[in-house]
Amino acid sequence: MREVAIVGIGATRFGSYPDRSLLDQGVEACLKAIWDSGIRPSEIELAYTGNFAQWKWGQGLFIGHLVLRELGITKIPILRVENGCATASCAFREAWYRIATGACDVALAFGVEQMTVVDSSKMLSVFTGRQYPEREGDMGQTAPGLFALMAKRHMAEFGTTLEQLAMIAVKNRKFGAQNPDAQLRKPVSINEVLNSRMICDPLTLYQCCPRGDGAAAVVLVSLEKARQLTAKPVWIAASVHVTGAYPDDQSYTFFDGDVRGVSAAYEMAGMGPSDIDLAEVHDCFSTAELVHYEDLGFCAKGEGGRFIEDGHADMGGKVVVNPSGGLLSKGHVIGATGISQIIECVRQLRGEAGQRQVPGARVALQHNAGGFIHTDVGSTLIHILKI
Amino acid sequence: MREVAIVGIGATRFGSYPDRSLLDQGVEACLKAIWDSGIRPSEIELAYTGNFAQWKWGQGLFIGHLVLRELGITKIPILRVENGCATASCAFREAWYRIATGACDVALAFGVEQMTVVDSSKMLSVFTGRQYPEREGDMGQTAPGLFALMAKRHMAEFGTTLEQLAMIAVKNRKFGAQNPDAQLRKPVSINEVLNSRMICDPLTLYQCCPRGDGAAAVVLVSLEKARQLTAKPVWIAASVHVTGAYPDDQSYTFFDGDVRGVSAAYEMAGMGPSDIDLAEVHDCFSTAELVHYEDLGFCAKGEGGRFIEDGHADMGGKVVVNPSGGLLSKGHVIGATGISQIIECVRQLRGEAGQRQVPGARVALQHNAGGFIHTDVGSTLIHILKI
Repeated sequence: MREVAIVGIGATRFGSYPDRSLLDQGVEACLKAIWDSGIRPSEIELAYTGNFAQWKWGQGLFIGHLVLRELGITKIPILRVENGCATASCAFREAWYRIATGACDVALAFGVEQMTVVDSSKMLSVFTGRQYPEREGDMGQTAPGLFALMAKRHMAEFGTTLEQLAMIAVKNRKFGAQNPDAQLRKPVSINEVLNSRMICDPLTLYQCCPRGDGAAAVVLVSLEKARQLTAKPVWIAASVHVTGAYPDDQSYTFFDGDVRGVSAAYEMAGMGPSDIDLAEVHDCFSTAELVHYEDLGFCAKGEGGRFIEDGHADMGGKVVVNPSGGLLSKGHVIGATGISQIIECVRQLRGEAGQRQVPGARVALQHNAGGFIHTDVGSTLIHILKI
Repeated sequence: MREVAIVGIGATRFGSYPDRSLLDQGVEACLKAIWDSGIRPSEIELAYTGNFAQWKWGQGLFIGHLVLRELGITKIPILRVENGCATASCAFREAWYRIATGACDVALAFGVEQMTVVDSSKMLSVFTGRQYPEREGDMGQTAPGLFALMAKRHMAEFGTTLEQLAMIAVKNRKFGAQNPDAQLRKPVSINEVLNSRMICDPLTLYQCCPRGDGAAAVVLVSLEKARQLTAKPVWIAASVHVTGAYPDDQSYTFFDGDVRGVSAAYEMAGMGPSDIDLAEVHDCFSTAELVHYEDLGFCAKGEGGRFIEDGHADMGGKVVVNPSGGLLSKGHVIGATGISQIIECVRQLRGEAGQRQVPGARVALQHNAGGFIHTDVGSTLIHILKI
């Protein structure tokens, strides 16, 4: 397989934009990424678009084609992919694979989503009752419900505390305050997290990511092309896509797909957890990030609580986790989230992350999960990027 | 690139199945395809699912994962793709590409859709007003409207007659009557076609494909695997995916993407139109098939009317077009249509098409189009298959 680099990144600031169309936001992100890359739009040979539920949110067909048409990019293969919350990472991975296998030298991967146009009650219906009514929806298993259960079990088995869970939100909101593209830019204290509205015991509001509207895009190119374009290409050292298969005989405190996926990613990159300087991981809830510390090998099983408490996930720690502010600060803009994570990794590896820069960052890991794990329909996407 | 073969096919009979879930139909198609292939489910290394608008039709998330879970297939990468009416062909093409580039030896591609659960008025909203309101929806440009315009222009420029257009429906319904898997199995006469209810002048009801519910699946394998499994592998000689870019200065009587796409496909296969024994083409309306005769090189520009009238698209003709009965008989089950077309090609090439068998068929062309051509968001997928 050929080496593939990211040479252009662009995103909108995630938030609530009822007056901006999905098309408009997609165009902004793609234009920024193309401008950043230095390529001409006509050099783009194929594109993958991530979008989760344009229908549900009231948006139309063919958003990928329409965005590209606005940019004057026609005639090339354009394909929309969807894989739940991991949608954008799949668009990125498919584009990477095409270049890695020689199908083309320049590809665009972008994700778009507009979620705030739907009111909260309808929003809930997206995540309950429909994904697998017999096993989840009818039992009241919403996403907060699942991650609350996991938190309770982790606390019971490993002595993880409410304060440790809250520290994850505190850290991510601190980083979010330093990220001009984050949706929530106000730091919060442990007390504020613990005293925010209860969503699903033990998860309070500030431990649950907001939704949002937005778009994120990257330009990927082959090695030869990268050398022509920039002195700072960011290389894709590993790309892995697996589906979960939750073991019935084990407790609900880990993600099977993450464990298998990261092992494959480390092998592909010829690296281990100690090589990772920073990680953008799927912190849809504080529990998620806690468990990812363990599943991704940043600490041993059961030690996630201590990992955050001892500062290992913060600036100066073993692995700086979610320096962008994560989903907890940026919001989870489903079709764009995975690429937004990759963009933060690129910014960090280029040394362009400003106030939240991880000093000397050389290797970054991106982790994006989608689906409902205890029905084995969850996907995990992991990328390791290096400069 | 490696040789890739189709070794298993399976589909439901398209129709209206309000009591069958999308999941149930997907499982039936995949089980049939796996059984037909002789592989074990555990040998499947990745899967692509085609589904157009599960949300809109009231279906849920992760249909691909759920179908595979029912079959005991977990842990592998599963990805949903969507590309309008060409959705299923994209699932097929992505799976082909992964095997062709050595990512795996065994892949499953399947498409599912359930469209009859939505009433007609809501159905219409899917195809109008949302895909590109500024340019199509607000101008009343439905799919019948676009293909009616094209018919009128073709008649004006080339002298194509109403009877010639009707003959396409007559031929396809004749074939449909011979296909146990077709939705409409009653032959119709030219008069019946011309006297059926007017939908959009000059297109009458029998010249417009019905919608439907259903699923279609194929198992694709590498050359080595194919040799172990069957004496009759069907080889993929060409796979092409392009996006249209309608020239402003030319009349609305052709599909730009088809012309470019088929040229690339013939080159890839080392073949020309005279090598094609049969073709499954996207006959969503009679006009579409008429224009495809020309765009795909089966006859010269403007001669589509004469091509059908002289019997060149019928049994014994130059290229037997839509021996399955086409969309006009089977119905357009959006997420499954492209793979359903491929399945008919495989049946014909294996010599297993029964009453509608094209004698001595060695090469088949599949053509599936999606999107709205005059806004340049149409995709064309073309595959050439051979035995």
